[in-house]
Amino acid sequence: MASKFYAVIAGVGSGTGRSVALKFAKTYPVALLARKPESYNDIVAEINQAGGRAIGISTDTSDTKSVVSAFEAIKKEFPDGKLAAAIYNASGGFSRKPFLEHTVEELQQSLAGSPIGLFNFAQSTVPLLLSSVDVSPPPPYPPTLIITGATASVRGSARFGTFAAGKFAVRALSQSLAREFGPQGVHVAHVIVDGVIDIPRTKEWSVNDGKDDGKIDPDAIAENYWYLHTQHRSSFTQELDIRPYVEKF
Amino acid sequence: MASKFYAVIAGVGSGTGRSVALKFAKTYPVALLARKPESYNDIVAEINQAGGRAIGISTDTSDTKSVVSAFEAIKKEFPDGKLAAAIYNASGGFSRKPFLEHTVEELQQSLAGSPIGLFNFAQSTVPLLLSSVDVSPPPPYPPTLIITGATASVRGSARFGTFAAGKFAVRALSQSLAREFGPQGVHVAHVIVDGVIDIPRTKEWSVNDGKDDGKIDPDAIAENYWYLHTQHRSSFTQELDIRPYVEKF
Amino acid sequence: MASKFYAVIAGVGSGTGRSVALKFAKTYPVALLARKPESYNDIVAEINQAGGRAIGISTDTSDTKSVVSAFEAIKKEFPDGKLAAAIYNASGGFSRKPFLEHTVEELQQSLAGSPIGLFNFAQSTVPLLLSSVDVSPPPPYPPTLIITGATASVRGSARFGTFAAGKFAVRALSQSLAREFGPQGVHVAHVIVDGVIDIPRTKEWSVNDGKDDGKIDPDAIAENYWYLHTQHRSSFTQELDIRPYVEKF
Amino acid sequence: MASKFYAVIAGVGSGTGRSVALKFAKTYPVALLARKPESYNDIVAEINQAGGRAIGISTDTSDTKSVVSAFEAIKKEFPDGKLAAAIYNASGGFSRKPFLEHTVEELQQSLAGSPIGLFNFAQSTVPLLLSSVDVSPPPPYPPTLIITGATASVRGSARFGTFAAGKFAVRALSQSLAREFGPQGVHVAHVIVDGVIDIPRTKEWSVNDGKDDGKIDPDAIAENYWYLHTQHRSSFTQELDIRPYVEKF
Repeated sequence: MASKFYAVIAGVGSGTGRSVALKFAKTYPVALLARKPESYNDIVAEINQAGGRAIGISTDTSDTKSVVSAFEAIKKEFPDGKLAAAIYNASGGFSRKPFLEHTVEELQQSLAGSPIGLFNFAQSTVPLLLSSVDVSPPPPYPPTLIITGATASVRGSARFGTFAAGKFAVRALSQSLAREFGPQGVHVAHVIVDGVIDIPRTKEWSVNDGKDDGKIDPDAIAENYWYLHTQHRSSFTQELDIRPYVEKF
Repeated sequence: MASKFYAVIAGVGSGTGRSVALKFAKTYPVALLARKPESYNDIVAEINQAGGRAIGISTDTSDTKSVVSAFEAIKKEFPDGKLAAAIYNASGGFSRKPFLEHTVEELQQSLAGSPIGLFNFAQSTVPLLLSSVDVSPPPPYPPTLIITGATASVRGSARFGTFAAGKFAVRALSQSLAREFGPQGVHVAHVIVDGVIDIPRTKEWSVNDGKDDGKIDPDAIAENYWYLHTQHRSSFTQELDIRPYVEKF
Repeated sequence: MASKFYAVIAGVGSGTGRSVALKFAKTYPVALLARKPESYNDIVAEINQAGGRAIGISTDTSDTKSVVSAFEAIKKEFPDGKLAAAIYNASGGFSRKPFLEHTVEELQQSLAGSPIGLFNFAQSTVPLLLSSVDVSPPPPYPPTLIITGATASVRGSARFGTFAAGKFAVRALSQSLAREFGPQGVHVAHVIVDGVIDIPRTKEWSVNDGKDDGKIDPDAIAENYWYLHTQHRSSFTQELDIRPYVEKF
Repeated sequence: MASKFYAVIAGVGSGTGRSVALKFAKTYPVALLARKPESYNDIVAEINQAGGRAIGISTDTSDTKSVVSAFEAIKKEFPDGKLAAAIYNASGGFSRKPFLEHTVEELQQSLAGSPIGLFNFAQSTVPLLLSSVDVSPPPPYPPTLIITGATASVRGSARFGTFAAGKFAVRALSQSLAREFGPQGVHVAHVIVDGVIDIPRTKEWSVNDGKDDGKIDPDAIAENYWYLHTQHRSSFTQELDIRPYVEKF
């Protein structure tokens, strides 16, 4: 934990973001971004009490100034730090209903939280990741940007149009970033989370006939993210899917 | 041309939109939407002089009110008309440069012109297309919404991130609309135009070693759109690609 | 019909092949290949009685010698003819059952009828199509090879493994042929037929809740194939999907 | 190493198979299949000398009887053993040349080594993997079948048709197996190895401008396979790509 390398996770709360934060905090100090302190306060406390180091910063990733300001705060907190890993786990609003009941505002929210948020996050993190590639001593693993996708990243289902528009756009950016910055040593990976995640909000949902492990364990997602971070640069994964063994696809 | 059916084409200018307008105007009266009158004035004149019927309406598809207002004007123009075909050929701004030189405004423009414009256009046209499905006498072909895509609809190339984000998002919406409204009788098709179109703006571009037909003839695109419109409802195409025979892919 | 150009259709019977043969026979003399005379006899008679010209040749496309021999017979029949279009509509055996109940012979049959058959057919037709590109007088449309695919061309569903293996392999060959011979002027297109075709064998099948046009009209497939054949070389389609408007996908 | 669980790797030699064998041998006794003893002898010796346990069996995976016989030998060697992981790393012959220079025998070899080999291997391993799912004591990780793919699994490039046909077909089978046996607790994963692997045979190849790590380290591939094997059943990956950071894609 004495490393000068740190990680940033955008979009922490009670699910994937929390698990990812806890996982990466075992190796790196972490900066956790969420709109509201109630989303990160408990996780920050949990990490710090366990002997790790975490800070939380209230950030609206869809707002460029808010993101720039967050990274100024991160720089103050880790003045000599180098960014080892950046995780974009935020998302636009999700709504499932007939297309004609959707409003353009709902689409704009999806886009704000998804491609625009990722754009802002990548504008701030990619330069930091690039500057970690050849730093001495070298980072333990190639500097990494990991992005959370969903079934809707590759499939525009009926009634899911506004959500899928945001998720497809995020995937486009992920591919483009991977192709531009991979050759410069930064690993950009996109993860298609194809299933319901087992978090407080989905507790009551009946999924996959209620079978054990029919929802995705967020800690298992975090294991995947950590694994992607540790991949050797001769074998970067750009995209992988994850789903429960019982999921129909 | 005595039909009560009409077509609407959004995004007309000197290329694909013009060719599509001329093609559909052989069968239907057409309403042509573009931001500025200079984009549609000549085409409107050309169609009307040839014995067809065309109107042009200055419309910013990224602006919901502007689109709603355009369709009010269309309704006044064709009070008893039924919409046979709607073409979304508008697009967000295209810029190719290193990611770190892109601004969030460029991404927003791409999104405004692509998924947001399509969303607004579909909100206005889908109800009209649905109301044409079972009208009597029936339309000559299934009511159709055709959407122009690009290479960047399926590939996030390096330096093309903001453009691809918009185009991926449009493809997501296209799929979602097809899945929701196909079963209600409306044909939604997405066309991946994978190559440089032979238009005034690209006249000087050297493409495919300057070979004949190395750029896509916009009239050929229009043939494809017309063909899609005429498909029998037992065999709707949701997506097809088109590219010059010499194009690398 | 006085043209020196002719077409060859492999895999004719009571469904797609028959409709494609009738459609292309309106413009070209046609040679129809099927394993058994009873598959083509009626169609040959129908075309000839209608004033067209057709021959049938018993051919096993999975057998290289049989295909070579068929094209020797075609050359005798059309000594000065030039090949305008070749359609590969044959397929390997279809079986849907648990993987562990499949035999390797079933897989081999799928491969024999699908990629091996297409390989043999393409070995014989591609040189003929190439020699039609620059012939004088020129062919009415770019010389074309069209290949029938299925849902299983892009999706390996449970219990469909052996069938999908053959269909995926056909798609691989189709792409490879398109990339090699497109730049030489030959149009290679792959059609994903995503639905049940309305033929005698499926008459009793209840599909899409029995809705009108819930099965694909084989004549509509033939329209698509003809359209692909007529595409301008500046806008070749490599792949398109077709499905009933009510099909879930 | 006292575990009753064992692993089988088909297609060992000097590259990926060897690395995978060494990696899995750290946890399980391993049975290594290859056509010729010279492909596995050194690896078997290396593992046994290091305190692991390995056997080699000369097997032609394209020959059903040969595969059945190999698994009889494995059963004798591990009479109380349960299969934890099966890796299919064999492949059909690779040839890159103009389509018209290919022979049907080359296609058949590609199919024999790819889908037919995988089919035979899966027919023998899937029942064993299924019987490991609920065994007591339980396996350390979900029983796993991992299959090696390539760029040609998802892209039919010019001149690569016969190779791609085999690889596409393997991918079809992989998807189908995943969809049938995932819900029964067996993890089936397909890995797209998109780049040149750094093995003796490619030593002299100039790849990615000769940059460090421009070829894929086979040990890195093995890490990926092991990681896939260890994934929690709530988050199985069906497909992932791996490529060097400098690879164009």
